Amino acid sequence: MTKKIAMIGLGLIGGSIALGVKRAHPEIHIIGFDKSESSLIFAKKQGIIDEIANDLEKIAHSADIIFLCLPVKLGINFLNQLSEKNLKPHVLITDAGSTKVEITQQAEKLFQGTESIFIGGHPMAGSHKSGVSAADVDLFENAYYILTPTSTSGKEDIESLKTLLSGLHSKFIEMKPEEHDAVTSMVSHLPHIIAAGLVASSNNYSIEHPLTKLLAAGGFRDMTRIASSDPRMWTDILLSNRVQLLKQMQRWREMMSEVEAMIAKEESDKIYEYFDNAREIRTKMPIHKEGAIPAFYDLFVDVPDHPGSIHQVTGFLLNEEISLMNIKILETREEIAGVLQLSFKNRTDLKRAQQAIESQSEFRCYEL
Amino acid sequence: MTKKIAMIGLGLIGGSIALGVKRAHPEIHIIGFDKSESSLIFAKKQGIIDEIANDLEKIAHSADIIFLCLPVKLGINFLNQLSEKNLKPHVLITDAGSTKVEITQQAEKLFQGTESIFIGGHPMAGSHKSGVSAADVDLFENAYYILTPTSTSGKEDIESLKTLLSGLHSKFIEMKPEEHDAVTSMVSHLPHIIAAGLVASSNNYSIEHPLTKLLAAGGFRDMTRIASSDPRMWTDILLSNRVQLLKQMQRWREMMSEVEAMIAKEESDKIYEYFDNAREIRTKMPIHKEGAIPAFYDLFVDVPDHPGSIHQVTGFLLNEEISLMNIKILETREEIAGVLQLSFKNRTDLKRAQQAIESQSEFRCYEL
Repeated sequence: MTKKIAMIGLGLIGGSIALGVKRAHPEIHIIGFDKSESSLIFAKKQGIIDEIANDLEKIAHSADIIFLCLPVKLGINFLNQLSEKNLKPHVLITDAGSTKVEITQQAEKLFQGTESIFIGGHPMAGSHKSGVSAADVDLFENAYYILTPTSTSGKEDIESLKTLLSGLHSKFIEMKPEEHDAVTSMVSHLPHIIAAGLVASSNNYSIEHPLTKLLAAGGFRDMTRIASSDPRMWTDILLSNRVQLLKQMQRWREMMSEVEAMIAKEESDKIYEYFDNAREIRTKMPIHKEGAIPAFYDLFVDVPDHPGSIHQVTGFLLNEEISLMNIKILETREEIAGVLQLSFKNRTDLKRAQQAIESQSEFRCYEL
Repeated sequence: MTKKIAMIGLGLIGGSIALGVKRAHPEIHIIGFDKSESSLIFAKKQGIIDEIANDLEKIAHSADIIFLCLPVKLGINFLNQLSEKNLKPHVLITDAGSTKVEITQQAEKLFQGTESIFIGGHPMAGSHKSGVSAADVDLFENAYYILTPTSTSGKEDIESLKTLLSGLHSKFIEMKPEEHDAVTSMVSHLPHIIAAGLVASSNNYSIEHPLTKLLAAGGFRDMTRIASSDPRMWTDILLSNRVQLLKQMQRWREMMSEVEAMIAKEESDKIYEYFDNAREIRTKMPIHKEGAIPAFYDLFVDVPDHPGSIHQVTGFLLNEEISLMNIKILETREEIAGVLQLSFKNRTDLKRAQQAIESQSEFRCYEL
């Protein structure tokens, strides 16, 4: 019998998961549920879903697997509603929210001792676009997709969820919900708080010092890019991950106080160590070279700044059928000038590219 | 009579300024001074300088204009040494250090009542490369070059310095030293302290939570990129701009404490306002769209991720002779996927590019 899955919340994330599921399992029947009528109609017309559900009853009765692709608080809200319905035996419910402790605790409370199964999920990718019209079958390719088992789920449930999601081409990682929320509080939530704080600080400062806005360039721009994120979603995240974030904020204030004391006391050696240590760690971090999402090998090419030379370089790669992961002119003048950065999947591709470029042009290539 | 200028410190900055000076004024004679013998020999051979000076006496006797292209503290050190030499009458001394209050105060102390003239300088650009071998005549093109007059300098001195530097194609801005140090403490120095702090925090955290390093992706990477900067230079900057930075750090801690309190008290509305305010400001900031260095117009193109489509797109631009300021695959999966970002100097170029791409391919173009 064909499995039926339900997508509650059919935006960018829900739509992209649906497309990924269908890529690997075209036979699966997908039911969509969303407050936006037009999203549902669009998704149906595009073949992202097979059927539109107008109420939760219908989903409860027919779905073997239910995805909650909603902001954290709303996901929990729907979980509560679902628990009151007549769910199918052994229904597997999962979500795509940014925190995992709150929803898994609630799921255990609701489903412990029932036949319903809950596994938390967090596909760690997104887009600057939103809505189901931006849904992309490749959105989660090579991205980490965190799964957090609960006391209601067994090993075989995790495996069957991974199989269902195999068409997303993600990297699945199982973590405890607590560990997920701890790690994301460090690598994602605290940085978002800081980025928003830097933007607000510089804005306050520019009232008395108008040139602040003019001189906020490269480094400042990079550091505050994530401050453009959706405020509703981030409010939810901060409240949902409150316990971890209070610990992070305390540690962060302490670290900043230490630096402040070093400056006040003019402790040159300690300040040097602070920056030297950071530089060393940053250079060694997997995000810098390899091991992270994804591991790139970067080749730098000195080129005159016009489309002709870029076109020439991409032509060399095309002729040799060398696959390019990314291309970028390093534009931030505060850091770099006149350099084309080419990213490759592996060292072999990089070396072949270097050979191709250097043998056919005057452009100088180097690695860093 | 040909003017003689001396470059004290012949690294990336000194070398690039020398090249820029020569571009506009090939007749000017440039004397180089550096602790590195090989840098001097390289620079002489490459025509970056015309003459090597082995001691400061020689520079003092012959130079009409002296550049100190050194880290802040070392620059002041050389300023002291120069003040004890027999300088040419009306010699103009300037520097390229990252803070301006300390060096201008010292210059006024040393040169007040003498015929020597000091103007502070800060060309706001750099490179990931260093040393005179990386010197680039275009390094400061379109970058802000701050000039801070002193009580020893007149309006005509500023003008003659700007004329001397016209070949750099920079945007000159006159500021008070105090204002320079205040603004850079906000847009550059505080962000550097924060970036290094985030790296150190995540490193500490990864001892107990090893997945921290694995999951530190897009946003985290962007926010900590500047933590790879030279620790010696940054130690100098913090000490030299101590007064402003202590104020910044205090305000920063207060802001972080406020956010911490909002989280602790679960003040949903205040947290929402914090993020919403930051998003609004960030979007309006000149760094986002226009007014800053440089003003770009971005066109986004949905393309399949392979060099063929990039080659195709750059080909369209080349055929139409549309000048491309930058090209980038938006790679950070946490934010964006499968999009080629093309940056143009003006809206006309952008519109022509969109027309060219859409009429000759299936690629969808849009602005954000």
